[in-house]
Amino acid sequence: MTVTTAVDLPSRFVRFAIENLAGSATELDQAAEHPLPQSQRFAEVGLANWWLAAEFGGLGIGMESSVDIVSEMAYHDTGFTFGSFLPILGTTMIERFAHPDVARRVLSQLGVAGHSCAILASEQQAGSDLTQTATTYRGSADGARLTLNGQKYFATNADRALYHVVLARDIDDGSEYRMIVVPRDTPGVRIHQRWSMTGVRGSATYEVALENVTVPVENMLHGNGIRVLEVGLNLSRTLIAACGIGIARRIRDLSMTYAQTTLVGGRPLHLNDVFAAKLGQMEAHIETMRTQCLAAGREIDELLARGGSADPLRQGTLRSAMVAKLFCGQITWQVASIGSEIFGGGGYTRDHPIGKLVRDARYIGVVEGGEDVTRALLYARYVKPASRRR
Amino acid sequence: MTVTTAVDLPSRFVRFAIENLAGSATELDQAAEHPLPQSQRFAEVGLANWWLAAEFGGLGIGMESSVDIVSEMAYHDTGFTFGSFLPILGTTMIERFAHPDVARRVLSQLGVAGHSCAILASEQQAGSDLTQTATTYRGSADGARLTLNGQKYFATNADRALYHVVLARDIDDGSEYRMIVVPRDTPGVRIHQRWSMTGVRGSATYEVALENVTVPVENMLHGNGIRVLEVGLNLSRTLIAACGIGIARRIRDLSMTYAQTTLVGGRPLHLNDVFAAKLGQMEAHIETMRTQCLAAGREIDELLARGGSADPLRQGTLRSAMVAKLFCGQITWQVASIGSEIFGGGGYTRDHPIGKLVRDARYIGVVEGGEDVTRALLYARYVKPASRRR
Amino acid sequence: MTVTTAVDLPSRFVRFAIENLAGSATELDQAAEHPLPQSQRFAEVGLANWWLAAEFGGLGIGMESSVDIVSEMAYHDTGFTFGSFLPILGTTMIERFAHPDVARRVLSQLGVAGHSCAILASEQQAGSDLTQTATTYRGSADGARLTLNGQKYFATNADRALYHVVLARDIDDGSEYRMIVVPRDTPGVRIHQRWSMTGVRGSATYEVALENVTVPVENMLHGNGIRVLEVGLNLSRTLIAACGIGIARRIRDLSMTYAQTTLVGGRPLHLNDVFAAKLGQMEAHIETMRTQCLAAGREIDELLARGGSADPLRQGTLRSAMVAKLFCGQITWQVASIGSEIFGGGGYTRDHPIGKLVRDARYIGVVEGGEDVTRALLYARYVKPASRRR
Amino acid sequence: MTVTTAVDLPSRFVRFAIENLAGSATELDQAAEHPLPQSQRFAEVGLANWWLAAEFGGLGIGMESSVDIVSEMAYHDTGFTFGSFLPILGTTMIERFAHPDVARRVLSQLGVAGHSCAILASEQQAGSDLTQTATTYRGSADGARLTLNGQKYFATNADRALYHVVLARDIDDGSEYRMIVVPRDTPGVRIHQRWSMTGVRGSATYEVALENVTVPVENMLHGNGIRVLEVGLNLSRTLIAACGIGIARRIRDLSMTYAQTTLVGGRPLHLNDVFAAKLGQMEAHIETMRTQCLAAGREIDELLARGGSADPLRQGTLRSAMVAKLFCGQITWQVASIGSEIFGGGGYTRDHPIGKLVRDARYIGVVEGGEDVTRALLYARYVKPASRRR
Repeated sequence: MTVTTAVDLPSRFVRFAIENLAGSATELDQAAEHPLPQSQRFAEVGLANWWLAAEFGGLGIGMESSVDIVSEMAYHDTGFTFGSFLPILGTTMIERFAHPDVARRVLSQLGVAGHSCAILASEQQAGSDLTQTATTYRGSADGARLTLNGQKYFATNADRALYHVVLARDIDDGSEYRMIVVPRDTPGVRIHQRWSMTGVRGSATYEVALENVTVPVENMLHGNGIRVLEVGLNLSRTLIAACGIGIARRIRDLSMTYAQTTLVGGRPLHLNDVFAAKLGQMEAHIETMRTQCLAAGREIDELLARGGSADPLRQGTLRSAMVAKLFCGQITWQVASIGSEIFGGGGYTRDHPIGKLVRDARYIGVVEGGEDVTRALLYARYVKPASRRR
Repeated sequence: MTVTTAVDLPSRFVRFAIENLAGSATELDQAAEHPLPQSQRFAEVGLANWWLAAEFGGLGIGMESSVDIVSEMAYHDTGFTFGSFLPILGTTMIERFAHPDVARRVLSQLGVAGHSCAILASEQQAGSDLTQTATTYRGSADGARLTLNGQKYFATNADRALYHVVLARDIDDGSEYRMIVVPRDTPGVRIHQRWSMTGVRGSATYEVALENVTVPVENMLHGNGIRVLEVGLNLSRTLIAACGIGIARRIRDLSMTYAQTTLVGGRPLHLNDVFAAKLGQMEAHIETMRTQCLAAGREIDELLARGGSADPLRQGTLRSAMVAKLFCGQITWQVASIGSEIFGGGGYTRDHPIGKLVRDARYIGVVEGGEDVTRALLYARYVKPASRRR
Repeated sequence: MTVTTAVDLPSRFVRFAIENLAGSATELDQAAEHPLPQSQRFAEVGLANWWLAAEFGGLGIGMESSVDIVSEMAYHDTGFTFGSFLPILGTTMIERFAHPDVARRVLSQLGVAGHSCAILASEQQAGSDLTQTATTYRGSADGARLTLNGQKYFATNADRALYHVVLARDIDDGSEYRMIVVPRDTPGVRIHQRWSMTGVRGSATYEVALENVTVPVENMLHGNGIRVLEVGLNLSRTLIAACGIGIARRIRDLSMTYAQTTLVGGRPLHLNDVFAAKLGQMEAHIETMRTQCLAAGREIDELLARGGSADPLRQGTLRSAMVAKLFCGQITWQVASIGSEIFGGGGYTRDHPIGKLVRDARYIGVVEGGEDVTRALLYARYVKPASRRR
Repeated sequence: MTVTTAVDLPSRFVRFAIENLAGSATELDQAAEHPLPQSQRFAEVGLANWWLAAEFGGLGIGMESSVDIVSEMAYHDTGFTFGSFLPILGTTMIERFAHPDVARRVLSQLGVAGHSCAILASEQQAGSDLTQTATTYRGSADGARLTLNGQKYFATNADRALYHVVLARDIDDGSEYRMIVVPRDTPGVRIHQRWSMTGVRGSATYEVALENVTVPVENMLHGNGIRVLEVGLNLSRTLIAACGIGIARRIRDLSMTYAQTTLVGGRPLHLNDVFAAKLGQMEAHIETMRTQCLAAGREIDELLARGGSADPLRQGTLRSAMVAKLFCGQITWQVASIGSEIFGGGGYTRDHPIGKLVRDARYIGVVEGGEDVTRALLYARYVKPASRRR
């Protein structure tokens, strides 16, 4: 990835969001068929996979700049935004850890056309503990091919993606985990069901079965699969966290609009001190979330700019990215909790946008590692080894 | 109201809930046409309006006993439960403050057949500040009739109710507030819309217009309308709070069931210490909610058992009932927040009951006075006057 | 214990507290020599050991009534109050589980003169896990005497007490735990040190060494020692919780006094809406804490009124008492946290009482089982066994 | 100020802290006479007033780098640290807004010898509302001198400072606020009392009376006094916030040390999952606090590097610095609250450092604007004007 830090807020994304998402929240909440017209438009205007290098058809925008891009888009619809940036998890792994030929071919195909790639990691029994992965791969006798079998639980974009990147274990050596690139149209890849999610319904998440799915051995990424995944998760977790900024900003602005026209005790709500205290706290929440996401983005940009795959692999999950996810998950839920009270009875009807924002907000803290998992990982990686404490 | 404190947990209600609500949560979540078949069945088995005295066809069950009844029913569906007990707000006002003939006629009609009565108090502009009520009544020249005009915002059961009890101001004296009994079929009573609520969708709430609605002057309840309403709200707020107990108990039991079959790090979740800590805290939450609701119920039972209307009017909003509502609203939301994380990704799909429980949980803290309103009222009534502090 | 539920708030305790504690907070905070003059006065006016039956020189006041007694006294000084009621832990065990002769002798000696008895249970290594107790007892060859050896960590009142009640294990059978009554003046009982506590400095807590301490075998209480202790802890935990009510009420009243004379933006603080919201919430906290303590007190009164020792032993730790301790520990800390901000810079000086109240408040959540221990115990006893859930 | 961003963590400060503060926490907690020997040593080794430019005898270290310096020092003692950096509030105002001759003279005197300057802003009646300041200045007839009168409430370092910077109002025009430099030894400057603070007792804070204190008119800083003060507060608030990082890191490390030697249920505490969850969360708290402080420091460095006084004056209070103070005040208190439970009974004795850390922690949220004030200011400055929202 060539990291280009855009100096200005990428106004093209803001414009896209206003023109294509702002009025579509209710429609996007319907969990419509994918690909969405908005996704097609996103690719048409050249914004899809914006983080890819120019050589692959992207805009080469780095993570620090992506934080505000995601915040601006999630302000209007978190589901669409999530579906749009999640391929970064796959492309990062492919760019860093795939055979150069595979990387070039895959990234070019994705970038030019705005296509998607999906990650198949979670499984029902394993829960959030990826070491319990039951999907296997088996090498062919001549060593040229790999055959995968398993069932993957939550895989966003899996149906429309050109490629899946699948976490599997060596059938002969359970301690060997690998990420493997699988073209979506490989025989044996079967969409089992699309989940009807509580929120982020502008994205599409699937359960996927892999039955004797065979790919060339070159499609295996180098490096321990769980570590490789951790490297990619640094990016996706940071951007998931950034969705929380957008949700909180939206709740703040809805609150302020409401406070202009609502009377409490005969006075406009925006003059009420208790309301002011809530909104002052909300602004502090927005600021600290954004600061943490930007810091994580910056650390990732610097890490990846140093090139190579050894350093990212060695570091694995970054403290800054884990904390961004944990923190924004907690804070976004707090903001949503307060927000869902501000609008009174009217806010408890489906006519009001706050209900969807609360549902979307819940996702930040749940996806890609809930709070318990994240805290335990922070403890194991960054507290127990005294030398890694800050 | 004849207060009869049932010693045992009213097993008839538990049986009704298991047979009629337990499997219907998804169906009840559809906001189906009212009256629901479950409501008809509730009346058929003689449980509707259970708090009414035997002379009116009720079971004469007091508030303290009603706490567990409501908790048991809300365990299965809060919406249906809310719609079932909310008439207590109206019947209490009518029994205490109506002309004896009116009271006898109305309560008999409701009790025998399990009919409903609705409260028309809130208005869009007034928000939670009832002193801003804009609905008016005007006496006829001969003093025999009252004519009401106005628009009421959130009125549960309003369509199927036999009677409405309406808060209105004297058109000639804005400082005079009254509650007035209006038969549902009086000309000029018009259902403007049914709200599509975020949760408690087994109940039905409406916006109602009153256009030149005329009733006999005997239909006016005696006493300041806002104070009269406060007396009734003591009961409904306590039972709304009790819904939170049921929701929390349900989340606890769902969590324990899930923990039997889920592995974390290769061990069953129910053996995990962090999970145990959450559930231990949840049990404490359930206990304190129930204790507070029972205390409020007991105080109300004792107050009403003393008879008369002067004492309840003088006391108005009871600290115990307000605190029950505020506290259970806060705690139920905390439990729902924790619960919505426990089930991981599966809990974020519509296949899982936790999503509905979170939506229902939100209602406790929002309906009949949000947190801000309740805190301000507690301060004004029970903190500022030093003699009323505890 | 003869349970007498006093109907009125025991005004004698209020008067004692006003006359003897109200002006002495700073003095009591000095951790002065024990016995304090206030303790002697407490005995002189006949209030010491108020829960003991009249036959033993007490007032026969039950637990439900004791909640408000403790709240009123802790309002003025939690340390003194804690030291005054803590003997209830020992007297309850002795009354229920001691040989009748021992019980009569010990309780008479305590009651008439207002003497104290101390519990020696905690040990440094065992922490809060009493099954790790290392103190032992060994029977004499003729079975007539027991000899104890060990080191006890936190033992309140141990120096001035007439009797210690000591948790020890059979030196030959580590699974046998017993509570044993030890006269304070028995050779080998040695006060190792008095702790300098952070708060509750009107009480006195000691580390105690037991070196070949020999007592008659009749001094052993019947029943498993840990269960016996749990029975006593139900009472002390409930009254520790009740201290939190007193602390919170005091902070509320200090806040209101401060708000009369303080201006914010040119207006008196007591008219400020944000302040009102805090105090309204504080009043709700006071109400829910008191309700839970009263409920625990009532359950204990009913349990003990049924007589015998089998039922209390079987039940062991009561949910209501554990929850009272956990909840009041959490809420008192919340109130103290908010309170310590209300008074601004002035509240951060030693001239202001809030500092001591914060330090005292911390004790509620720490003593006799911290939050983690209590949550784990609630889970093990009242959540895992489905039949015990509420 | 010449902003030099030190790349490495300034190890000289770490060494100073370890050698001079680490073992002195108890001694520093005694509120000893000032100047402390540690302060003299701090100046001797050339670290005092480290932010001053080299031309004034400082090290020219910027705010971003100062965050870790302060965190490292506060790790060992927050009081000493606070007293050491607080002069930055005065020197910043003097450097930017004083007559060049005054600035050069004052800063040179401070820097070379490591002397202090104090801010006299708060007043008892005004509380946190500086617009209520009652201290006045009056110009002499010839315009050459100013005479100040008033009483200032909390002024850290006031006794040993070479200079005071005083907020006062024009006696003839109450809308004119000014900061005025007053040499400490000017006749009429009288130390009224030293406060005995709850925590941060390694610093020294005074109440100061000004009686006909006369200084040359050149000593008046240009610009609205409240705005000028806001510019300085950006720096001191950020560094106060940074103290919270140090306190939290210390609590984390104490917890980990304790967990090595403590058993829970027979297993070392550091292997306990509930403990791990607390420490994982604590690490997240440390990370987010540090990230926000660094961001505020960076913004301040950039703002001041642009030179001039117009831009800082126009911006006044920065969102990033206010949020750092509010956030770190809240989070440090949360960490201290959790920390004060971790150590059990032992943590509740004065032998244990956690008690002092809790008292110190409280200061972050109270000094230089409590939470209410900060939230209200955030709302007024950064939420109500829609263009300033983020």
